[in-house]
Amino acid sequence: MSAHDAVEVILTKRDRGELSDSQIDWVVDAYTRGEVADEQMSALAMAILLNGMTRREIARWTGAMIASGERMDFSSLSRPTADKHSTGGVGDKITLPLAPLVAACGVAVPQLSGRGLGHTGGTLDKLEAIPGWRAGLSNDEMLAQLESVGAVICAAGAGLAPADKKLYALRDVTGTVEAIPLIASSIMSKKIAEGTGALVLDVKVGTGAFMKSLDDARELARTMVDLGTDAGVHTVALLTDMSTPLGNTAGNAVEVAESVEVLAGGGPADVVELTVALAREMLAGAGVTGVDPADKLADGSAMDTWRAMIRAQGGDPDAPLPTARESHVVTAPADGVLTRLDAMAVGLAAWRLGAGRARKEDPVQAGAGVVWHARPGDTVRAGEPLFTLLTDTPERFDRALASLEGGYDIEPSGTAFTAQPLVIDRIG
Amino acid sequence: MSAHDAVEVILTKRDRGELSDSQIDWVVDAYTRGEVADEQMSALAMAILLNGMTRREIARWTGAMIASGERMDFSSLSRPTADKHSTGGVGDKITLPLAPLVAACGVAVPQLSGRGLGHTGGTLDKLEAIPGWRAGLSNDEMLAQLESVGAVICAAGAGLAPADKKLYALRDVTGTVEAIPLIASSIMSKKIAEGTGALVLDVKVGTGAFMKSLDDARELARTMVDLGTDAGVHTVALLTDMSTPLGNTAGNAVEVAESVEVLAGGGPADVVELTVALAREMLAGAGVTGVDPADKLADGSAMDTWRAMIRAQGGDPDAPLPTARESHVVTAPADGVLTRLDAMAVGLAAWRLGAGRARKEDPVQAGAGVVWHARPGDTVRAGEPLFTLLTDTPERFDRALASLEGGYDIEPSGTAFTAQPLVIDRIG
Repeated sequence: MSAHDAVEVILTKRDRGELSDSQIDWVVDAYTRGEVADEQMSALAMAILLNGMTRREIARWTGAMIASGERMDFSSLSRPTADKHSTGGVGDKITLPLAPLVAACGVAVPQLSGRGLGHTGGTLDKLEAIPGWRAGLSNDEMLAQLESVGAVICAAGAGLAPADKKLYALRDVTGTVEAIPLIASSIMSKKIAEGTGALVLDVKVGTGAFMKSLDDARELARTMVDLGTDAGVHTVALLTDMSTPLGNTAGNAVEVAESVEVLAGGGPADVVELTVALAREMLAGAGVTGVDPADKLADGSAMDTWRAMIRAQGGDPDAPLPTARESHVVTAPADGVLTRLDAMAVGLAAWRLGAGRARKEDPVQAGAGVVWHARPGDTVRAGEPLFTLLTDTPERFDRALASLEGGYDIEPSGTAFTAQPLVIDRIG
Repeated sequence: MSAHDAVEVILTKRDRGELSDSQIDWVVDAYTRGEVADEQMSALAMAILLNGMTRREIARWTGAMIASGERMDFSSLSRPTADKHSTGGVGDKITLPLAPLVAACGVAVPQLSGRGLGHTGGTLDKLEAIPGWRAGLSNDEMLAQLESVGAVICAAGAGLAPADKKLYALRDVTGTVEAIPLIASSIMSKKIAEGTGALVLDVKVGTGAFMKSLDDARELARTMVDLGTDAGVHTVALLTDMSTPLGNTAGNAVEVAESVEVLAGGGPADVVELTVALAREMLAGAGVTGVDPADKLADGSAMDTWRAMIRAQGGDPDAPLPTARESHVVTAPADGVLTRLDAMAVGLAAWRLGAGRARKEDPVQAGAGVVWHARPGDTVRAGEPLFTLLTDTPERFDRALASLEGGYDIEPSGTAFTAQPLVIDRIG
């Protein structure tokens, strides 16, 4: 006879009670084994979304998800480890330059990444634009590459937090994605099971982010920092702006190219700023001092590590990147100042051009995406290019153009413009 | 392409919005067809439970459940129709004397009933204690019996509100039973589809009832009366006490015997009182005046209708009723006055003795149950019988006795005792 039954656990949370450790351990394990049915877990997820969870409950839930699978162990490495997680944004290619940059500073980066769903791109989709590069590594291959190169960006294996994989797919179809306890435990169960020593969270806030309000973003960040800290992982979070997309491109190959510019010491100022800020946090979390990541961009050592990392996973860093078969230019309708460029509008346009996927089985187009030729604060001139839309399938242009409508403002020259800070707050 | 998708409907209710008519029609139909999955409907049911529904939403939801199946039509009958629904209680045998009594007064009673689940008994389980009696009738058999006898108590056919059948089973395993909009629409969709002209609701409140608080019972009653009225059914509700069990017996055969006593002009005063009160409401709802149901109990015509009704469904009204193989008497521990007899304690004891079922596939014992030899207000004497427990399986006595512990109070002789009214309020 079981210690608990599903209805009893659901009723506890439905009636605003606190789940006991034993209830949480049982329900996560029984769901993973199939004893608790999908329709029971979705009712529980909805009750959690509407009634919340305490810090103790979230920590226990995260622990139960970790216990559902294997744990990785990087203690045999000759250097400390640090990882980064972003809650997802538009043009968020930061992982690409960041992982080799931090590795070049002497800290190993075991970056388990995902594919994109919806308007936010996926790191693995971007890297797969590089001819030959593969996302799937065994744990042994990952460990060997961390020792030899110092940086790995790869897909999470099936053995890590299987309860989370099952629950994540369920939440996606039952309207229970936006529950902070469930988002936090989903992210942190994988990061803690992965075994990183330090973790920096990039929690996005704004129109193009999952969290639209600063309060929600702050609560999510605080919840995740607490979870990491309680589990012995040195964890900090930066709250960063995602009302404007990052850099000048959203897509796959176009974002790889932009990342390589940053590694070459150039690239868009905002991408460089955020990459260096996150790198400094990762180094501090790993206990490495006296190294300035900006120097490693300038001296080419981050680029060397990038090339070694891409090669180690079968990719050719010198191969030309795929390009889209068709392009369409949107010109500025008037002279003036670009005062707003909406991250969600740009993200939706890139997604509709084929850079992202609607269902997780869908393929993505390596060459698809959006390039913007001005950023908020820039002067624009009527008739000059504002956006270039890229796709292999030109029938997609109409819907992509529709999503850009109303997504930017051009105001008369001389209009006052104040840039918003990119890094809004630090929690940890 | 569908007009809606499940996640959109769930998000509307999750975020405290009102579901549109079109969303409700779509989701109930799509769930019945299997296009909306169980795990999606259970998440929606939890959101409805926690966030509520407006009167318009509940009416539309009820209408959509009715539209999922067939509707019955009694307009060809030579007399008006009236039905009764009880939300379920302990010792609640009222349907048994009530249906033939109202028929004897000239109103046809098409009583679709259910089987018991949990501590409340089921009308069909009780009647099945009568040798030969069968619960399953075709619609044509039901109509013919209504014309010839005037009363039918039978199982609802599978064609009536199939959406409700599927949803009811889902709610049972997902902790979403106790949602007033879903309870009300479940009951009323079947009663409206059944096509009765008038309906009297017996909404129980108290420890042995589904609704423990008067506020909840009142809200449920008001919701159901509104639904019936909006659908053109003359509907009233009585709120009645279920802190004390009805009559002197809880079980199957024992409750049939007690009902026959009432039909013979005797029986426990509370059962007679409630039967006559509900009969008066049914007659008034059907527009029949100038007949006093108390007279039809006294003159034997209700008993004649009972015998005809049992015979028409294959039963022998003269056959001896089954008796339990084993009995156990609980005696009063002291002299005094019985000041409290808890309906839930008695209901659980009867259930544990085998009168009810834990799962809907389980059989029930015809002879099992509890007889109590005193009611609140009665004087008891130490050593004299207080309860008789009946079962075919004596290993059940221990757990039944445990559920009676603390379920009654005996106070010193002379302690003031004020009986609570049985009918608490009338809504309609």
